[in-house]
Amino acid sequence: MRTFKLTLSYDGTAYAGWQVQANDRTIQGELERALRTILRTSVRAVASGRTDAGVHALAQVVSFACDTRLDTATLGKALNANLPRDIVVLDIREAPPGFHAIRDAVRKRYRYVIQDGPTRDVFLRAYAWQIPQRLDVVAMQTAAQSLLGTHDFSSFETSGSARVTSVRTISDLPVRRCDGKTMDRIVLEVEADGFLYNMVRNIVGTLAAVGRGKQPPSWVAEVLTAKDRKRAGITAPPQGLFLVQVHYLAELEPSAGSPHNDGTR
Amino acid sequence: MRTFKLTLSYDGTAYAGWQVQANDRTIQGELERALRTILRTSVRAVASGRTDAGVHALAQVVSFACDTRLDTATLGKALNANLPRDIVVLDIREAPPGFHAIRDAVRKRYRYVIQDGPTRDVFLRAYAWQIPQRLDVVAMQTAAQSLLGTHDFSSFETSGSARVTSVRTISDLPVRRCDGKTMDRIVLEVEADGFLYNMVRNIVGTLAAVGRGKQPPSWVAEVLTAKDRKRAGITAPPQGLFLVQVHYLAELEPSAGSPHNDGTR
Repeated sequence: MRTFKLTLSYDGTAYAGWQVQANDRTIQGELERALRTILRTSVRAVASGRTDAGVHALAQVVSFACDTRLDTATLGKALNANLPRDIVVLDIREAPPGFHAIRDAVRKRYRYVIQDGPTRDVFLRAYAWQIPQRLDVVAMQTAAQSLLGTHDFSSFETSGSARVTSVRTISDLPVRRCDGKTMDRIVLEVEADGFLYNMVRNIVGTLAAVGRGKQPPSWVAEVLTAKDRKRAGITAPPQGLFLVQVHYLAELEPSAGSPHNDGTR
Repeated sequence: MRTFKLTLSYDGTAYAGWQVQANDRTIQGELERALRTILRTSVRAVASGRTDAGVHALAQVVSFACDTRLDTATLGKALNANLPRDIVVLDIREAPPGFHAIRDAVRKRYRYVIQDGPTRDVFLRAYAWQIPQRLDVVAMQTAAQSLLGTHDFSSFETSGSARVTSVRTISDLPVRRCDGKTMDRIVLEVEADGFLYNMVRNIVGTLAAVGRGKQPPSWVAEVLTAKDRKRAGITAPPQGLFLVQVHYLAELEPSAGSPHNDGTR
């Protein structure tokens, strides 16, 4: 049995998320179908995290184990030939036996894109949260500071999941307005050792309330301390969210190279 | 009767092009439907040029005349409320009587995006020509030089149109590879006083043959001189093409401001 580590990029617009479902198209469903076609056997694919319907990935990491004599380059090409045009394998390599994309992930990074301003960009309707009002990015940056570090993020967890603990560590949370022609674009990134259900989208919805001037920046620290989902802002819509990077311990990295790339390998 | 100058942006993916057709959704059809809803009368909209199916616009200019007491800002907002999410009015202003978006255009600029390399970018599949082979941009730049200036561009005109003359003047034709993360992206722009049918896509298909190393840069000058469509390269696919700017004489500009914007007005 060989174990593989796959790095995927996908446009989530047409999918009901990562996880296989009975009646909807999903990323996992398409990937496992392609693997079945190539390997002539059923293979279970495990992703570093389940992305929801409409959420995208620049570099999702997936593990699977199978018996095959195909080399990784051939398997990667065969997958790309069998996957729909909105899912692509960026990288495939053999991983140490037992490598598991969820369990072994030590840190993940998500990006969230907001387009704010009266004129919507037609090319961003599936890739950003379009808000007609201009947001105060400096207030959002100030508010974001209070979320850095190790906290109980219950206030930012959509119920329905049963986690052992709601404590997570956010190591980076930049909020910036893009330059030049894209002045109406705000990009947030959140890097953490783990994410509660809808955590990024709930953080973004909360920071957007600050950006809109509905709440002062100091309110976000109060929301965090309350440990009560009802105190936070709305859940930002899915189409602005991108999984951008998944980190593993060096000894679990299949090779010395980067586990992902930006499409230019 | 008042005359209006409208600047539109649209994602052409879902449309059979600009021009109204009996059974297909078109940009003109959607715009005239929105105008009819708001103005309660049929209005004919004229664009600076008819974009084909799948072709996009960052700033298409449209003229129309009607009787209305609505101010331009109200009319613009009403249009955006009545247009689908993939068409947006960026700007609307009153134009001098008789202003005509095609006849009065003195120069137009198109952009064409190529993504070249083995790993396709899933987010560009409707917005670029994806070529698995890396192209030689320097050779394409050299070849593009021979198209600058005033020439008979018959070799780059898809038949089916009946124009009085095939002579046009290309005033700018930059070809450049994007920096940073988008190293696998080539952006060409063509600015001219007018365009023959499929002229940009035929130029791009021809320059791509040079970029692929199938032809030397000097071949493009031979193609131009031949005045024979059969000598040129293939027609590049529509989804990489964007209408980016339309220029009018200063006296026809409805105000001192720019006739278009990049969405940040």
